[in-house]
Amino acid sequence: MPDCVTAEIRVLRVNGCEAAWSLDEVAVEEPLEIRLGCGDSPRIYSSISVTMRTPGHDRELAAGFLFTERVVQSASDLESIEPWGGLDENGFRNIVKVNLRPGLSIDARRLERHFYTTSSCGVCGKAGLDSIRVDTERLAVAETIPRNLVHQLPQRLRAAQEGFAHTGGLHATALFDSAGQIIVMREDVGRHNAMDKAIGHTVLNSSDSPAVALVSGRASFELIQKVAVARIPVLAAVGAPSSLALRLADECGVTLIGFLRDARFNVYTHPGRIGGLAC
Amino acid sequence: MPDCVTAEIRVLRVNGCEAAWSLDEVAVEEPLEIRLGCGDSPRIYSSISVTMRTPGHDRELAAGFLFTERVVQSASDLESIEPWGGLDENGFRNIVKVNLRPGLSIDARRLERHFYTTSSCGVCGKAGLDSIRVDTERLAVAETIPRNLVHQLPQRLRAAQEGFAHTGGLHATALFDSAGQIIVMREDVGRHNAMDKAIGHTVLNSSDSPAVALVSGRASFELIQKVAVARIPVLAAVGAPSSLALRLADECGVTLIGFLRDARFNVYTHPGRIGGLAC
Repeated sequence: MPDCVTAEIRVLRVNGCEAAWSLDEVAVEEPLEIRLGCGDSPRIYSSISVTMRTPGHDRELAAGFLFTERVVQSASDLESIEPWGGLDENGFRNIVKVNLRPGLSIDARRLERHFYTTSSCGVCGKAGLDSIRVDTERLAVAETIPRNLVHQLPQRLRAAQEGFAHTGGLHATALFDSAGQIIVMREDVGRHNAMDKAIGHTVLNSSDSPAVALVSGRASFELIQKVAVARIPVLAAVGAPSSLALRLADECGVTLIGFLRDARFNVYTHPGRIGGLAC
Repeated sequence: MPDCVTAEIRVLRVNGCEAAWSLDEVAVEEPLEIRLGCGDSPRIYSSISVTMRTPGHDRELAAGFLFTERVVQSASDLESIEPWGGLDENGFRNIVKVNLRPGLSIDARRLERHFYTTSSCGVCGKAGLDSIRVDTERLAVAETIPRNLVHQLPQRLRAAQEGFAHTGGLHATALFDSAGQIIVMREDVGRHNAMDKAIGHTVLNSSDSPAVALVSGRASFELIQKVAVARIPVLAAVGAPSSLALRLADECGVTLIGFLRDARFNVYTHPGRIGGLAC
């Protein structure tokens, strides 16, 4: 596959009265179809998701998606994840085949509910309003994160965020341990794909559970859902949260931080996990 | 329904060492289910979409979605669009029922393909990679838009964008006529919903076709798809375009402008529609 994250293109740059053609880079956006193989013999494949994603880390994306949608519980439920099919006209392979552990029983309704997904949302394929929420156990308050550390996270994300510097068009998710070290950072045109890739990395590598997830954009309902399933106690966003994100974070016990920038941040739910606030 | 766009919430504001609770507003995010009624007697309803949206202009959202997905061709295909069901715990009505004109024949595969959608993407429900693109006729080059006018569009959008000033968490789409006057401006937590609402407004009001669509964020594949179906020749984005957006804009004959800010912009495709570039 070619360089997955950015593509070189020609652009007419206009600056005041001047206009000149030049080369530039854009974020790559391509569809990814996830085919899930269940059963022993014969193994039956079904297409469970088509998402617009930035190519690269497709195995992590599939693993993270299946984990946060609670189709699988751990890496041991996944027998194999492999790219499949030929290259498209641009040299991308846009299908990934996932084989589940033989004997694993899957909730058929869950599969049906998640038949489709997209680049920035996890609610698709959920038939009707009642089934939108993935059931998550309420997170207990674990250790606290010092306020000083929270302020440093965006800078650490930016330092790790190579693709963004090129295109300005990628969302990023970084997962940090409780000392503020980056466990994994992933970028994608879809904010939910970036989160799925990062969580998928921890699932496939059986990493310790992260202490904080930081997203470069806004915090929506589905991101809260994903961190709650992955048992990540704190979600910090550089952008704004939505009303439903707040409600779900409150219910699930997730500490939700928004507008984390310029030595400031807002805490919307469960501030008890942030240490050093009263100084 | 309560104020639809923003909700008042409590927030712990952290600024350096100081932390204080205060009131703030966030963008409202709620699911909307679209139920489509086909056939005469009995009329059969099916749930064709669940999207996370900012409540308000739900009729336009449903009309714009059905139009840009080519389920309907014009307002005359729509017999009625009405909110349905009771209020949820927060006072929102989250189902809209659409009755098609009796006798209208619908492509069943199209319905199947679009069974689900989301707040920021139009690819859902399209079974497999081959069926992702909505077929659009190539737009002819029509009249040109003066460069000076292009530079003024973001300011006109911001002036119309009340919700954004409150929350920082809403995407906006504005449709302009060829004189640069705003025909309609809509905001939503999902960029595609904002576009669907704006286009839905023109469908329901049988407005003249807009000359330019301006979006407050990035330009993705699905936004190009929607403007191409709505025969809007120019899509301008304050943010970056993706690779697939470029390709589709090139193929469909859409002029794609990115990074429209600070007296600058980039033209990626079909620059012939922008007048006054060589000055």
